[in-house]
Amino acid sequence: MKNIEQLQTYLTEKDFSQLFILTDDNTSKFCLPVLLEKVDILTDRQAVLLEIPAGEENKTLNTAENIIDSLTESEADRNSCIVSLGGGVICDLGGFVASVYKRGIQNVNVPTTLLAMVDAAIGGKTAVNHSGIKNLIGTFNFTSQVFFDAEFLSTLSSSQIMDGIAEMLKTFVMFDYSGAEELMQITDFTEIKRDLILHCAEIKEKITLEDPYDRGIRKKLNFGHTLGHAVEMFYGLSHGHSVAVGMHYALDLSVEHTGYDKQKADKIKGFIENNYEIPDYRSDMQQLIPLMRQDKKNTDGEIKFILADGQ
Amino acid sequence: MKNIEQLQTYLTEKDFSQLFILTDDNTSKFCLPVLLEKVDILTDRQAVLLEIPAGEENKTLNTAENIIDSLTESEADRNSCIVSLGGGVICDLGGFVASVYKRGIQNVNVPTTLLAMVDAAIGGKTAVNHSGIKNLIGTFNFTSQVFFDAEFLSTLSSSQIMDGIAEMLKTFVMFDYSGAEELMQITDFTEIKRDLILHCAEIKEKITLEDPYDRGIRKKLNFGHTLGHAVEMFYGLSHGHSVAVGMHYALDLSVEHTGYDKQKADKIKGFIENNYEIPDYRSDMQQLIPLMRQDKKNTDGEIKFILADGQ
Repeated sequence: MKNIEQLQTYLTEKDFSQLFILTDDNTSKFCLPVLLEKVDILTDRQAVLLEIPAGEENKTLNTAENIIDSLTESEADRNSCIVSLGGGVICDLGGFVASVYKRGIQNVNVPTTLLAMVDAAIGGKTAVNHSGIKNLIGTFNFTSQVFFDAEFLSTLSSSQIMDGIAEMLKTFVMFDYSGAEELMQITDFTEIKRDLILHCAEIKEKITLEDPYDRGIRKKLNFGHTLGHAVEMFYGLSHGHSVAVGMHYALDLSVEHTGYDKQKADKIKGFIENNYEIPDYRSDMQQLIPLMRQDKKNTDGEIKFILADGQ
Repeated sequence: MKNIEQLQTYLTEKDFSQLFILTDDNTSKFCLPVLLEKVDILTDRQAVLLEIPAGEENKTLNTAENIIDSLTESEADRNSCIVSLGGGVICDLGGFVASVYKRGIQNVNVPTTLLAMVDAAIGGKTAVNHSGIKNLIGTFNFTSQVFFDAEFLSTLSSSQIMDGIAEMLKTFVMFDYSGAEELMQITDFTEIKRDLILHCAEIKEKITLEDPYDRGIRKKLNFGHTLGHAVEMFYGLSHGHSVAVGMHYALDLSVEHTGYDKQKADKIKGFIENNYEIPDYRSDMQQLIPLMRQDKKNTDGEIKFILADGQ
């Protein structure tokens, strides 16, 4: 992940025919001024602002169509570039549109939420939701560049921060338990260290480079996501919060099936319980199962959970 | 391009979780019985039939959504395979849906028109039309396998045959003039030789392998397509017919700008005039120009024509 200052250089060197900034109405207020201040070229080159309403409910094919229509109106050609400024919704949407408009234009992610910094902005997965199913339609778009600025963190609500913390916890539990320990010791999450964020983002980058198409080790990044996605749809919880709930269950499954250390699992579950509201998902399991059946990881009619290794 | 008989082996070896056949209501009547007779496994594995109405006007994002909804209803997982049986519309649509459903499932093209056999089914370009613009939304999907059966040719109308002849002429003019000579000598195009079709398909395969993303030599395959796409939209002519018109103009440009042999150009133009109705496109140029401005080849606001080399 590069620093936001390098975006100026990148856009200058690449000499795109037109620049577009995709953002939502929230991010437009709080983060766009920061971006424009740090990346002059966007103003100099009269980047066209494409603004959508904020919220996961707008991550649809219909919104993608509206963006495509705006690109068409501006006569965007194949040498255009979209700068996707926002959280997971914006990065997923911008990456998707960029991968299908005229069979592919350039996308640049500038994640503004902690969750997007450590997860959605990295690794090439793009998507829109469809028919009530998370990320049903999407592509792998490995051309997206990612630029990081810690200044955006100060614009986030505490629940947005906690969404990111959940994904960080997931990555660390699967790939670097010492990171999880460090994370669980934090008392004020608004003061989370820039280095810990970058370390987490680097792990994700490394894993996705190793297994871009999600056929092997990258699947581990879906820890907590099978139940998580179902929880997200069923209770309408945020993505990070839902992943925390999903991990809560996946940790029990891991202890049971892989011999994952029960003490560790209890510690992580305790952290989750202290920081996230946990719905009574076990009582609702009969309704959650049909939603889990739509998970992209499934093949041959079985529901697949990712488990933490016994260690 | 493999023979249709090899599709049976391919589907058996790959052991997909579910098979789908995408086709249109015309092809379903005339070609599906042939496919089912030659490829048993489709019946044995209870391949799900996805049928759309025939016609270029159905190559839309909306149709793609309907197909995706049908896949979702059938709980198609990532290990599913679509067999796209039809002309360019079906191959483009099937390839597109397969590249975005759950971020990518397998697609197999079984082209049933001459045009699809020598062009649309090969080379990984997928697309839907949008906002009145041909192929505005699409992907490169290089995983599609292509299977050939000359038996389908007998189901085609003479105008469908002539659509394919136009694309063949284009490929031969750009890459193997002796092929063009052979083509222009044919008196009954319904009797076109299987070997000439396969030779043309091989040229396209070779070129697209060399330059998959259309950055260099592959652009030559767009000969006749700048005006062609505009003509297709403006007069509502078929794709092949429109490409013939586009070549008619591009040949003049080639003589003028690259020193392309005028005698050759006149011979090809004569062939086009004898076999296709040529609208008075020069009188309508003012209306065609805005349509050409939307061409995907354009960058930096200029309209780009592909010309035949002077020789």
